[in-house]
Amino acid sequence: MTSPHQLTAIEAGRQIDAGTLTSEALARDCLERIAEREPSIDAWHHLAVDAALARARELDRGPRRGPLHGIPFGAKDIIDTFDMPTEYGSPIYKGNQTANDAACVALMREAGGNLFGKTVTTEFANMFPGKTKNPHDPQRTPGGSSSGSAAAVGAQMVPLALGTQTTASTIRPAAFCGVVGYRPSWGDLRLSGVREAAGSLDTLGLMARSIEDISLLRDVLLGRTWEPLEGEPRVPRIGFCRTALWPQIEPAAAVLLEDAARHLAAAGAVVEDVDLPPGFGQILDAHRWVSSFEFSRNFRHEVVNHWELISQTLRDGRLKDGLGCTWERYAEARSFLDTCRGQLDGVFADYDLLLTSPCDGEAPIGIQTTGNPYFSAIWTALHVPCLTVPAFTGPNGMPIGAQLIGRPRHDRQLLDAARWVWRSIG
Amino acid sequence: MTSPHQLTAIEAGRQIDAGTLTSEALARDCLERIAEREPSIDAWHHLAVDAALARARELDRGPRRGPLHGIPFGAKDIIDTFDMPTEYGSPIYKGNQTANDAACVALMREAGGNLFGKTVTTEFANMFPGKTKNPHDPQRTPGGSSSGSAAAVGAQMVPLALGTQTTASTIRPAAFCGVVGYRPSWGDLRLSGVREAAGSLDTLGLMARSIEDISLLRDVLLGRTWEPLEGEPRVPRIGFCRTALWPQIEPAAAVLLEDAARHLAAAGAVVEDVDLPPGFGQILDAHRWVSSFEFSRNFRHEVVNHWELISQTLRDGRLKDGLGCTWERYAEARSFLDTCRGQLDGVFADYDLLLTSPCDGEAPIGIQTTGNPYFSAIWTALHVPCLTVPAFTGPNGMPIGAQLIGRPRHDRQLLDAARWVWRSIG
Repeated sequence: MTSPHQLTAIEAGRQIDAGTLTSEALARDCLERIAEREPSIDAWHHLAVDAALARARELDRGPRRGPLHGIPFGAKDIIDTFDMPTEYGSPIYKGNQTANDAACVALMREAGGNLFGKTVTTEFANMFPGKTKNPHDPQRTPGGSSSGSAAAVGAQMVPLALGTQTTASTIRPAAFCGVVGYRPSWGDLRLSGVREAAGSLDTLGLMARSIEDISLLRDVLLGRTWEPLEGEPRVPRIGFCRTALWPQIEPAAAVLLEDAARHLAAAGAVVEDVDLPPGFGQILDAHRWVSSFEFSRNFRHEVVNHWELISQTLRDGRLKDGLGCTWERYAEARSFLDTCRGQLDGVFADYDLLLTSPCDGEAPIGIQTTGNPYFSAIWTALHVPCLTVPAFTGPNGMPIGAQLIGRPRHDRQLLDAARWVWRSIG
Repeated sequence: MTSPHQLTAIEAGRQIDAGTLTSEALARDCLERIAEREPSIDAWHHLAVDAALARARELDRGPRRGPLHGIPFGAKDIIDTFDMPTEYGSPIYKGNQTANDAACVALMREAGGNLFGKTVTTEFANMFPGKTKNPHDPQRTPGGSSSGSAAAVGAQMVPLALGTQTTASTIRPAAFCGVVGYRPSWGDLRLSGVREAAGSLDTLGLMARSIEDISLLRDVLLGRTWEPLEGEPRVPRIGFCRTALWPQIEPAAAVLLEDAARHLAAAGAVVEDVDLPPGFGQILDAHRWVSSFEFSRNFRHEVVNHWELISQTLRDGRLKDGLGCTWERYAEARSFLDTCRGQLDGVFADYDLLLTSPCDGEAPIGIQTTGNPYFSAIWTALHVPCLTVPAFTGPNGMPIGAQLIGRPRHDRQLLDAARWVWRSIG
């Protein structure tokens, strides 16, 4: 029998609507799951057990608030909350309390969501890792920077969690933890109340265990009426895009994705190899300068006043790059990325979506680093919608994802087509 | 003799460097000016007199910090500060204290700036006005939403102040208060720690009493080495752009701007009438839906939890528009604005800058509203750099500005050419 904590948000919502499950029973079962799994995973930076139960009982007493009525969720600890501390993964902000909820949290709560707590982030959503372990193997990294959100959803502690992505911070941990991760088209979902890393690249990141749940959460975060993904998705035209990073991928992961491409063709999709335009080879370099320049200006208060509380990793990485990057170099890199974005119509002329790898393979052993970010960073820089689905299992029993890329601002079409892809691979 | 409070930032900085003025003497003179003028103007929401003097003495004891060493400034009260409250012009946030400085404040302080306090903003940088009066006539509005910043600079209380602009919130108050106001190209200056109104339109706004000061402050906010605007500016090719709003302008203001265009031609510039492409007529409508949709999502926490503390003006205006705006309508308006932005190369093919009006004339009587925003909103929506200079005096003795518009991301070229324009008009 399926326990409530194993349900997707939509499945749990249906049972709550039908009266066969209460918000409180769901919350209790998820909290039990957390009590069981948290000691070996450490997904939560702050867990508000009593508040979660009180909220569940309050929801059970009242009318249906919206499509997330009674659904537990977590929020990455760079996202402000009026009733819980927000510490940004940094000792500088020990005990920091903001006055209001970030827009995304407020929208989820308005729809009936039950915020369980704040999930572990790397320091300022950059590279220095937190305490979280991979739910499929505590020896391995969960990925970052949205480490706790991916681990909490992957461990079936909560069906939904919020992260962010400036480089690879949603797609990578989602793939490593075996969950569905979604980075929306840049600019679609509001970031008010989310600590900015590099605004021209930042987006929210959504974690769930089904594509339908991602679509539901996206509708909530857009502040629109939920329109479920329903019916038979159209068979998409698929570009199989290895990218210039292909030599970095683990052989087993490469074979799995190439097999999947063949399966999709056999299932009836047009699947063709597609190369990105030659100039796109400079995207990672441009991403580095744009993200570092903006980050180092955004964190000037911390640089000037709290240098000794910033990790060596951050000082010698993003901050060193950013503080050494001239305005001219930044402006050139930014213009280069604009030019690349302008070439996407050509890339997508014959395809509805691209199939590619979210990472270089299984989550690596060790929690001192968060893994290879480049397979995700390319797409982040291009502002396109990205989705990873836990399609495969690797040679060490770890989840491996398949990443699907959509046309800019065609997020719903991507999610719809991705249903067909996942089903056909699986 | 010129008092220190009358100096521009660059002039004061030169005297401090030369040892003929101390940071403390400058701060004391500005504070005396504030004590004299503030009772009739109410530019400040929070003024930190003791902290300003302490900071000035600290700066006098140490080495030169940067190009703003000892320079007093104000920051609009939607900009976070670690040592002063930030109340966003709303009773909801009475006494609110954030943990850190916004990026812009941290950058100015790092460069030696002396933050005197927080200037009055309209409620959440929207339309409901604060207490501030126009420094040139207390019966009249200072404009909004950066009301206090414009009034403080216009009344010679401080040489520099920070505002923001989502519609007309810097250019309009700057023009009404007789100061130089600058809205940078969208995306250039970091907004971390500034309360978001509508992220796809928001920028910082800079207030000063010279174009050279604006350029200095821009360099500081970019986190780059100051390169003063020097030498003889090139004579620009000028498009005189009345826009479709021309019938709304006061006759006296229209005559002043048309005379100025003739003066500029007589001084040697190419000056030609230019019309915006016909489709641009829908820009104000698109701006309305984009800004309202984003605003209403960003302020979901306040809408859900503090509805009774939100002004009727905001409830029945921006929030009603935004809560009633569908995602589809928003997405269409956003795409329309993208299309217009793509046509700017054509508009600027033959011109270095456009000359237009920042407002419909002098600041109107009454402080219940902040004046006509449309003359500025068009350019806000286009993401172009905008500068207003206090070029004229109207029939009621009030300042009237001339607005200059540059190519996107050609801000320095705009500021450079604007020196020639202002000198030639004046």
